[in-house]
Amino acid sequence: MTDNIQSNNHGFTPDEAETLPVIEVLDEDNRLRSQYVDQVHDCLDEDDNEQIYRLVQPLHTADIADLFELTPRDDRGKLALALGDLMSADVLAEINDYVREDIIDALPAGQVADLAAQLETDDAVAIIEDLEEDEQRAVLDILGPEDRAAIENALSYPEESAGRIMQRDLVAAPETMTVGQLIDYLRVRSDLTTEFWEVFIVDPHYKPIGTCQLSWILRTPRSIPLGDVMKRDQSLIPVDLDQEEVALRFQKYSLISAAVVDDEGRLVGVITADDIAHIISEEAGEDILRLSGAGEGDINEPIIDSYKARVRWLVANLGTAMIASFIIAQFGAAISSMVALAVLMPIVASIGGNAGTQTLAVTVRALATNQLTQSNTIWAIKRELYVALSMGVSIAIIAGLGAGYFFTNPILGAVIAAAILCNIVIAGMSGVIIPVILDRLDQDPAVSSSIFVTMITDSMGFLLFLGLAVASNIV
Amino acid sequence: MTDNIQSNNHGFTPDEAETLPVIEVLDEDNRLRSQYVDQVHDCLDEDDNEQIYRLVQPLHTADIADLFELTPRDDRGKLALALGDLMSADVLAEINDYVREDIIDALPAGQVADLAAQLETDDAVAIIEDLEEDEQRAVLDILGPEDRAAIENALSYPEESAGRIMQRDLVAAPETMTVGQLIDYLRVRSDLTTEFWEVFIVDPHYKPIGTCQLSWILRTPRSIPLGDVMKRDQSLIPVDLDQEEVALRFQKYSLISAAVVDDEGRLVGVITADDIAHIISEEAGEDILRLSGAGEGDINEPIIDSYKARVRWLVANLGTAMIASFIIAQFGAAISSMVALAVLMPIVASIGGNAGTQTLAVTVRALATNQLTQSNTIWAIKRELYVALSMGVSIAIIAGLGAGYFFTNPILGAVIAAAILCNIVIAGMSGVIIPVILDRLDQDPAVSSSIFVTMITDSMGFLLFLGLAVASNIV
Repeated sequence: MTDNIQSNNHGFTPDEAETLPVIEVLDEDNRLRSQYVDQVHDCLDEDDNEQIYRLVQPLHTADIADLFELTPRDDRGKLALALGDLMSADVLAEINDYVREDIIDALPAGQVADLAAQLETDDAVAIIEDLEEDEQRAVLDILGPEDRAAIENALSYPEESAGRIMQRDLVAAPETMTVGQLIDYLRVRSDLTTEFWEVFIVDPHYKPIGTCQLSWILRTPRSIPLGDVMKRDQSLIPVDLDQEEVALRFQKYSLISAAVVDDEGRLVGVITADDIAHIISEEAGEDILRLSGAGEGDINEPIIDSYKARVRWLVANLGTAMIASFIIAQFGAAISSMVALAVLMPIVASIGGNAGTQTLAVTVRALATNQLTQSNTIWAIKRELYVALSMGVSIAIIAGLGAGYFFTNPILGAVIAAAILCNIVIAGMSGVIIPVILDRLDQDPAVSSSIFVTMITDSMGFLLFLGLAVASNIV
Repeated sequence: MTDNIQSNNHGFTPDEAETLPVIEVLDEDNRLRSQYVDQVHDCLDEDDNEQIYRLVQPLHTADIADLFELTPRDDRGKLALALGDLMSADVLAEINDYVREDIIDALPAGQVADLAAQLETDDAVAIIEDLEEDEQRAVLDILGPEDRAAIENALSYPEESAGRIMQRDLVAAPETMTVGQLIDYLRVRSDLTTEFWEVFIVDPHYKPIGTCQLSWILRTPRSIPLGDVMKRDQSLIPVDLDQEEVALRFQKYSLISAAVVDDEGRLVGVITADDIAHIISEEAGEDILRLSGAGEGDINEPIIDSYKARVRWLVANLGTAMIASFIIAQFGAAISSMVALAVLMPIVASIGGNAGTQTLAVTVRALATNQLTQSNTIWAIKRELYVALSMGVSIAIIAGLGAGYFFTNPILGAVIAAAILCNIVIAGMSGVIIPVILDRLDQDPAVSSSIFVTMITDSMGFLLFLGLAVASNIV
């Protein structure tokens, strides 16, 4: 199915791409080799800026960004200064937010403004939105009036909304324009953006009525009006839509680029798939960090921020553990007369906690990807009930037989089996119902579900096991 | 910064996009409304195929795919048959793998082959690779020889590799061809693909030497050779590269499309950003499911598969819990003479487990996104040590004071404080070191890390607390 144009066999410099020295500094997974990074760091220690420049020059901007992330915090400013003109706007745009702050602090505001002015609006906004207010002011003041207006406009939209991540540089045309007119226009207007993937067809009010992929334009005779080439059906992104929703639309409709419209439906910007890739990754990766209470979870985050985010979670966890301890304390007499209870009780709580976490992970992912909606909630709960019941029976049998045999006490075996079965079912039900309720209440199900679920599985684990043990008169 | 072409004010049908009936069936998060889904299901129950067709006709293919996922398993085949020609190849391509199997089972092999033939190779492969071998044969036999060869070729590459997800339809040209020649060629060759975003420039051996974005071609005069328009520096994807690595390259280099090359460096296909979006989401979402032992974690997975994946994990967990129980059993005498130990010991284990999970989540994400490499491993371990120490001290003080006060036993308070501090540090260290070692051994750190970490934090929690209690002579 490959289509190609036959080569005419002259004027080539074959294999040129393969001789790029970039390849030598990357390992098989396309990451910077540690030997290479060490070499740069050694030069930094020796203040050998010339050698640093030579080493870094062949790198792609994305790799220079990685190099900064792999450089100790105190040396980042020094590296930025050593790189001179290699320290381009694109490098700055691709760097981790926390690492970027270190670098910007080391660069004069004038240079930061120069770098920001070279960027497309979305990247410039990403850099400027993280600055302190006075630094923001300083950078904005240096920018030209047009850039400043565009960036201030972007900053007026909510954080993490389409308005923050869109580009304003785009190409729009009326539907009566012909393919030939468009091509002529694009050739003469040198001030137009060169980075666009679709032409948006707009009405006289600048409202999008269709899109043309550039490939369709290239394949169409000059005389045809764009209105006959365009696709009318399109996904318009409201400018205040949350970036997570934007990412979901790109995935759902397999978009390469999409028009962003304001409240009146007028075209104000464009978002392209390359801007979306890291948002999808971030949003999908966030759930795991939130479920485990690890905050932002960025390894470049200052230690104090990581400490604050995580310790809050552990304090909450201390609270739920104390509830469980309080339950155990009610059974003090039983435990001191039958130590086997103390030996076995953590098993019931632990298995319940794990079963709950499994269901929680599945439910949080299904909610985040819009696979679990109101239409199939009842079905999903039933599904988890069946899974939990079958797992509960299996684990209860193993644990019950094991405990009964080991302590030569079949009733104790029956007690732990019953407690495990019930706790796994409770875990499964709370693992699906709690995040669904939080989602229905417009809360992020990943943030607080696991505290509730662990509290329930711990407490119920001890209560069921110790309660059944006392009730069965084995103590 | 917006560039646009002024409208010339005639021939418009404004607001046409807004009158698309699609909008009415979607909620504010762009998901199918449950009322709408119920309506379709009611028609299915009444076998009112005409009404179903009318209801579904205005939907985007991605929404039809969602409708199938929201339809009970037994009704999916019925819905597919009711939709007739709305059941297009694109719908099939966008449907969840498990749900697709239900539908394919309901459709005759001839229709499946017809649908597969309409698709681009990557989508056709995604459908066919999931079929049973005899079904695969049946479908392949019906396809034309060219399509069959392309799909068989794709199936010869490893699962989840670039060769499986690439499209073979692409446009390649020699660097001596001019912009004008290319445009003329594209206009006359009706058999060429209409879906492409870049033209690949190849040498006589069909090795890529550069790429041209279509926007650059559109903005360049006819007489200029493509060699002067193209960008030489490009990211070539080896055909056997794992899709996770492909996704990382798209993110790292902000790619819209990339050339795929075989072992000899010849151009064999193209991967575009829209194919990558769902892979990024899947791969990032997978970690949370793996860390919690939830297997594939797809809510459309058959219950028996979910049961198998998850119960295996709970059995392993039962094993680690038994090790912890064995440790507790060694301190039976201490516990029966001082029940407070049984009351407090789960706190130490639980806090350790949570601290370990936090570090694990951060480390697994950092490894998956190539942020944690050999160059900064030592630094990352030190970082986690500092975070763990500061959290350990904080939680130890709270828990120690609380326990000492509540049990009016300051030594008991000191014992639990020391045990918690040590266990949080152990948790932090194992939470970073274990996944790093697994990654270095080319194992997926998300799959088995948490079993090891939980085993360590549970066992050490009980051992430290009970051991210190006995050693301090408070029992």
